[in-house]
Amino acid sequence: MSAELRIVPIKGIGEIPPGTDLGILIFEALQANQLSLQQGDILVVTQKIVSKAEGQIVNLNEVRPSEFACIAAAQSKKDAQHIEVVLRESRRIVRMDHGVLITETKHGFICANSGVDESNVNGERELTLLPIDPDRSAFEIRTRLQLLAREDTTFDIAVIISDTWGRPWRNGQVNAAIGVAGLESVVDYRGQRDPYGYELQASAIAVADELAAAAELVMGKIDRIPVALIRGYPYIPSKNDARSLLRDTSTDMFR
Amino acid sequence: MSAELRIVPIKGIGEIPPGTDLGILIFEALQANQLSLQQGDILVVTQKIVSKAEGQIVNLNEVRPSEFACIAAAQSKKDAQHIEVVLRESRRIVRMDHGVLITETKHGFICANSGVDESNVNGERELTLLPIDPDRSAFEIRTRLQLLAREDTTFDIAVIISDTWGRPWRNGQVNAAIGVAGLESVVDYRGQRDPYGYELQASAIAVADELAAAAELVMGKIDRIPVALIRGYPYIPSKNDARSLLRDTSTDMFR
Repeated sequence: MSAELRIVPIKGIGEIPPGTDLGILIFEALQANQLSLQQGDILVVTQKIVSKAEGQIVNLNEVRPSEFACIAAAQSKKDAQHIEVVLRESRRIVRMDHGVLITETKHGFICANSGVDESNVNGERELTLLPIDPDRSAFEIRTRLQLLAREDTTFDIAVIISDTWGRPWRNGQVNAAIGVAGLESVVDYRGQRDPYGYELQASAIAVADELAAAAELVMGKIDRIPVALIRGYPYIPSKNDARSLLRDTSTDMFR
Repeated sequence: MSAELRIVPIKGIGEIPPGTDLGILIFEALQANQLSLQQGDILVVTQKIVSKAEGQIVNLNEVRPSEFACIAAAQSKKDAQHIEVVLRESRRIVRMDHGVLITETKHGFICANSGVDESNVNGERELTLLPIDPDRSAFEIRTRLQLLAREDTTFDIAVIISDTWGRPWRNGQVNAAIGVAGLESVVDYRGQRDPYGYELQASAIAVADELAAAAELVMGKIDRIPVALIRGYPYIPSKNDARSLLRDTSTDMFR
């Protein structure tokens, strides 16, 4: 738990056309960065390139807004077609105020605008949606990278898909994990004792979110670094995915 | 924005008695870890050792609970004296349910139990409170470290005081910044353009929180590493402090 951690930006990844095999792309980008995968490496990949590779893109001109989307748009002075897409990606509206829609996505994430983003491609009126199943996306990238890196079946790495979210009470956005493959997202220290024999009470740490946040620090927003390599974090191997980060309704006071 | 980041745990820091000069202590710990401060380094220090050094400790046996604290304690099956201390540290109760008190502290932070923690010292019934002014704490540690490291007045480092908090909607806790000295906590990319000429719309990144979260990854909970050094993050020097992380009431939908 106390070795040095390195976070390395993977440069040179260009625009991602639909159908891109991200495992291959990331593997080649690592090579171009003079990096080879090592046992225990973690790759953090931004949602946006996953969504693009998977074709999770909507052309706004083809969207016909519902009546409710038009009402919401008029209130918030936003685009009705944009809001229509946000609504279609949600299963519940958590808050609707100040021109902001906080929704629960079909995955169970609670975030602004169902994670729908204006896409930065070609100046077209396009939106990117979250991946349909970010855990599966992470799993597929991980599997591909492990196969490309080694034939040895004990070779183990982890992959996190990250998105950039606002928070209640705090200014600024931070990266969070929306897809996880290969590592335990929440490490539970409860029941363990500290060096004074005192039982730790409330220390379940969302390490997947902390790893996503750490990776953002080398990604920047202008530089467009969509992948970071984290080396030196002794993660707990696990088959659990990002769903273990979703708080149970019964203990959530802010739904 | 795209150089490699290193996060180094500072080992060997023992128990912190009240009155400890943390600047000197951290400087000596860095030396013991064969590290010397470099221009642009960031030190992340956990709240707990700051609170202990500043004597922000309450002996539970000396606390006389109010009637309301007793009512709340009975409802939540918690200790009335403990709840009394939480109430005294708060200026507003945000939520009170499931045996959890989410409060707004006197600093303006919204977190569980006003940041009051059971202390892990000597098995005594003691609580640690948040530092009275974590920004000042960060500033004092930074000033001391800069003086100890160099006489050169252009030598610049940054210090973050971190605490470990739960979040709405997500399982697990993550580290957040409660005190900041020397760096801009929220980096605003709005109005800038990405490589496709597309104006970035909602990208103000809470880098101080991401740095705090990143540092937690080398701190562990059992190992007791209360300080981490982050090297290679090109922070924006600033006189702003952690108050810039507090969301304005008028845009907050979850108060």
